Amino acid sequence: MKSSARRAAVAELVSLSAASRRFESAAHFAEWDQETLMPPGGAQARADLIGSLQAVHHEKLTSKAYAKALGRLADLKTGEPVSGLSPLEESLARGQWRRWNRARSLPGALVEETARTASASQQAWSEARRKSDFKLLRPYLERLIALKREASKHLGGAHPYDPLLDEYEPGMTVKELDPLLGALAAPLKDLARRAKGRGRPCAALEAPYRDEAALDRVVTRLAADMGFDHTCGVIARSAHPFSTGFHPSDCRFTVRAEGDGLMNQLLSALHECGHSLYEQGMDKRWWGTTLARHASLGMHEAMSRLWENMVGRDPVFWRRQWPHLRRAFPRLLAKVSVDDVLEHLLYAPPSPVRLKAGEVSYSLHILLRYELEKELILGRLKVRDIPEAWNAKSSELLGAPPPDDRRGCLQDIHWSGGSFGYFPTYALGNLYGAQLFAQFKRETPSWGRSLAAGKLTPFKDWLSEHVYRHGRRWPAAELVRRATGKPASAADFLAHLEARYG
Amino acid sequence: MKSSARRAAVAELVSLSAASRRFESAAHFAEWDQETLMPPGGAQARADLIGSLQAVHHEKLTSKAYAKALGRLADLKTGEPVSGLSPLEESLARGQWRRWNRARSLPGALVEETARTASASQQAWSEARRKSDFKLLRPYLERLIALKREASKHLGGAHPYDPLLDEYEPGMTVKELDPLLGALAAPLKDLARRAKGRGRPCAALEAPYRDEAALDRVVTRLAADMGFDHTCGVIARSAHPFSTGFHPSDCRFTVRAEGDGLMNQLLSALHECGHSLYEQGMDKRWWGTTLARHASLGMHEAMSRLWENMVGRDPVFWRRQWPHLRRAFPRLLAKVSVDDVLEHLLYAPPSPVRLKAGEVSYSLHILLRYELEKELILGRLKVRDIPEAWNAKSSELLGAPPPDDRRGCLQDIHWSGGSFGYFPTYALGNLYGAQLFAQFKRETPSWGRSLAAGKLTPFKDWLSEHVYRHGRRWPAAELVRRATGKPASAADFLAHLEARYG
Repeated sequence: MKSSARRAAVAELVSLSAASRRFESAAHFAEWDQETLMPPGGAQARADLIGSLQAVHHEKLTSKAYAKALGRLADLKTGEPVSGLSPLEESLARGQWRRWNRARSLPGALVEETARTASASQQAWSEARRKSDFKLLRPYLERLIALKREASKHLGGAHPYDPLLDEYEPGMTVKELDPLLGALAAPLKDLARRAKGRGRPCAALEAPYRDEAALDRVVTRLAADMGFDHTCGVIARSAHPFSTGFHPSDCRFTVRAEGDGLMNQLLSALHECGHSLYEQGMDKRWWGTTLARHASLGMHEAMSRLWENMVGRDPVFWRRQWPHLRRAFPRLLAKVSVDDVLEHLLYAPPSPVRLKAGEVSYSLHILLRYELEKELILGRLKVRDIPEAWNAKSSELLGAPPPDDRRGCLQDIHWSGGSFGYFPTYALGNLYGAQLFAQFKRETPSWGRSLAAGKLTPFKDWLSEHVYRHGRRWPAAELVRRATGKPASAADFLAHLEARYG
Repeated sequence: MKSSARRAAVAELVSLSAASRRFESAAHFAEWDQETLMPPGGAQARADLIGSLQAVHHEKLTSKAYAKALGRLADLKTGEPVSGLSPLEESLARGQWRRWNRARSLPGALVEETARTASASQQAWSEARRKSDFKLLRPYLERLIALKREASKHLGGAHPYDPLLDEYEPGMTVKELDPLLGALAAPLKDLARRAKGRGRPCAALEAPYRDEAALDRVVTRLAADMGFDHTCGVIARSAHPFSTGFHPSDCRFTVRAEGDGLMNQLLSALHECGHSLYEQGMDKRWWGTTLARHASLGMHEAMSRLWENMVGRDPVFWRRQWPHLRRAFPRLLAKVSVDDVLEHLLYAPPSPVRLKAGEVSYSLHILLRYELEKELILGRLKVRDIPEAWNAKSSELLGAPPPDDRRGCLQDIHWSGGSFGYFPTYALGNLYGAQLFAQFKRETPSWGRSLAAGKLTPFKDWLSEHVYRHGRRWPAAELVRRATGKPASAADFLAHLEARYG
C-alpha cells in the first residue's frame, strides 16, 4: 500500500473507532453519575439510557463502514494485517480486528439473553447471600453458565475457558495461566502459615473518622503527589470506591462516601488513583482504538495495586506521610505512632472472605475461584455442587472451610453477573505489578531517597514510559516481558511477599 | 383506524420518540456535567461527545422508521392528524410532526454552517464585549443573520421572523406577539418613571457570604417546601445558575458556585427550582414526545419567574422565611430586619444592562431587542447600524442610551450564538406568569394564609394541574387561555406591577 493511502486508511479506522468508542465512553459516564450523584428516582431512565448508548456503540462497531475501513488494514477473516504496515499499525489492525470480531461473533439474541439473565441473577444473588441460601441462586447460575458455554463455542479457542478469559485479559490462555497461577499455591500456603500472628491492628485507623473535608484535602494532595493531573480529572464520593476514564483528558475516581476507617480510605484512594493515572497516561492521538486502551484488566489491576501495596505499605512512604496525616486528623491520631501504622498494615488475620484477605492470602482466594470456574465452564463441575467444591477448595488452600455460604461461595457478585474469566485478572495484577516494580527499582537506585522526600512521580514516569503510553499494543504478559526483559512469572511477587511477611 | 391499531401506532411513535429523545437528553446531561464537575482539560472530548449525541438524536428523529410511524398518525405533508384519533392523540401527532418537519426541512449543510459560525461568533463576541468594539463581531453577525434568513425561507411562515420565533415559542407569531408586547411600552415607561427612588439597598444581602453549607441547607429546605422531589432531583453548584431535566425522574438545578450575594442566590434558587418543578411535573407516560415537553420557553420562564417574583418578592413569604434565614446566617444578618429585606427587594435603579433590570423595566429591555431583531431578519436594519439603532431605542424605551456598546448592543450572548427569536420568550414568561398567578389567587382564597404558614405546595399543585402535566399539548398562549378563561394578555402583568411599584 502506498504510504499516503496507508495513512488515510489508518486515520479513517481511528476516526470510526473513536466515533464508536464515544458511545461506550458516554455509557461509562452515565454509570459514573449513577454512582456519584444520580437521585434514586432516576434509576429506570438511567438504565434505559445506558442500554441505548451501548446499542449505538455496538451498531457503530459492527457497521458496514467500520468493516470496510478495517478491511483495508487487515484480512477480515483472520485478522492478519495487510503487508506494508509499520509494527504499530499492525498492532492497531490486530487489536481493532479482535474487538470487531468479538462483537460480530456473538449472536445478538445470545448477548441480550445473557444481559437479562445476569440482571435477574444479580438480584437473586443479593437475596441468596442475605439468606445464605445457595439454592435461590442456583437456577440462574445454571442458565448463565449454559449461556457462557454457548458464547465460548461461538468465539472458539483451544480451551473453552480461553475466550471468556480473553474478554478481560486479551491474549491470555489457560495454557499460559495454569503454570503462572499454579506456582502460587504451595509458596503462599507456606507463607500464610508462617505469617500468622504478624502485625497488630490499630483501632483509630479502623474507626470511622468525622472530618470528611480533611480526608478530601489529604487525598487531593496525595493524588497530585502521585502525578494525577487535576485539570484532567475529578475525585468524588460513592458508596463503593471505583475509577473510570472517559478520555485521557477526563479521568475520575471516588473514595467511599461513608462508613470506612481512615486507613482503608487512604489505601483505596491510592488504588483508585493508580487506575486513573493509567487512563490519564493513554496516548490521546490513538484514543478510541486499542492503542489507547488498557492492555488488560490484569494490567489495570497491576497499575492500582502497585500504588496500594508497593508504595502504600512501604515504611519509608509512611514515615514521610505521617506528619501530614496527623496534622489533618489531630484528634483521631493523637495517640497513634508511625510504628502503630506499620504494624497495622502487616496485620491480616486469615479470613474466608476475599475482600478481607491480606496481601499473602489474597491470591489463594483467586486460585480457588479460577480452578472452580474452569471446571464449571468445562461442564465437569455442576452448579449444584458448587458449595461443596468451594468448601473443599477452601480447606485445601485457605486451611478451613467458610462458616457458611454467605461467607463462602455466595460472597462475590462476579459469577451472578456473568463474569467468568474475570477473577484471574486480580492475581495477574499482583504478578505483573511485582515484576514491574522490581524492574523499576533496579533501574532507579534513587527511589528510596525519592520516597523519603515524598517525591512519587519518578515511579509514575517509569510506568508511563513502560506501560501507560503503549495501551494494548501488546498482550499484557508481553508488555511485562518487554519492560522487564523476562517472561511474566510469579517469582518477583513471591520474593516481595517473602521479604515483607516471611 | 381500529382502536387496537391506533393504540399500537401511538405506542410505536412514543417509543421511537423516546429512543430519539434519549440522546438529546444525554447531550443535556453531558452539558450539566460540563458546567458542574468536568475538569477543564476535558473540554474538547466533551464537545465531541455532545456533537455525537446530538447527531444520533437527529438521525433517529429523521429516520425512515420514525417517518413511517408518524405517517400512520398524520399526513406527512401537512401534519394534519388522521381521522379517528382522540384529541390528545391528535395533539401528539401534530406536535411530533412539527418537530420532525422542522428537523427534515433544514438542509444539513445549513445547520452545520450555522453551528460553526455561531461557535466562532461567540468567541468573537467575548472579545468584542471585553473591548467594547462592535466591529469585531460585525462580520460574524452578518453571516449569522444571512444564515437565519435562509433558514426562515426553508421553514416558511407569514412573517420571516415567525419560524425563528417558533423554535422557542411554538405556535407564536409576529401577528400575535406585536400587540401582546406592544401593550407594555407606554405603561411600563410611565411606571418606571413613577417607581424611581423606590426601595433601599441592603449591603448585607448583596455582600458575599461565607457559609456555603448553610446556603445549601436553606436551598434544600426551600426546594422541598416548594414541592421539589429530592428523590428525583439534584441541586449542585456551577459558575452560572441553570436547570436541566433529563427525565421527570431526574431534574437538576444549580446555585452559583461563588461570588454572589445572599439575596441573589435565594431568588435565583427559587427561579431555577421553578424550572425544575415544571420538568418533574411532566407526564412520564408520554416522555420523549411533545406531550411531556415544556409548552414553550416562554412558559418555562413563567414557571420560574412566578416563584422568583410572585412568591419570592412577597412580603408575606419573607415574614415567614426570615427567622429561618437569620438562624442560618446569624452573623451576616445580625443587623438586618425583615423590613430591610422588603425595601431591598423593591430597589431597582435604572440600568442599561438587562440582567441588572428590575421587574418593571426588564420587559422594556426585551421590547428593545425584539423590535431590532425583527428588523434585522427582515433585512431592513443592517448589522453595521445596530449600535446606533440600539442606542436610539434605549433612549426611547429606557430613557437614556448606554454609556458604551459593552453595556449596550454587546451585553447579551444570544445574537452571537444565533438565537434570534429567543428574547421575546423572557417577556412572554412575565405575561403568562402574571395571568396564571392572578387566576390561581382567584381560585385559592386561602393562599395568603398558606404562604404565611410556609406552605407553598398549593401553588405547585395548581401549576401541576393547569400547566405541568399538559406538556406541549397546546401552544403556550392557548394553555394560558384554558387555565384562566381569557386570551393571553399583558393586563394582569401590568396590574401586578402597578400594585407593587405604582
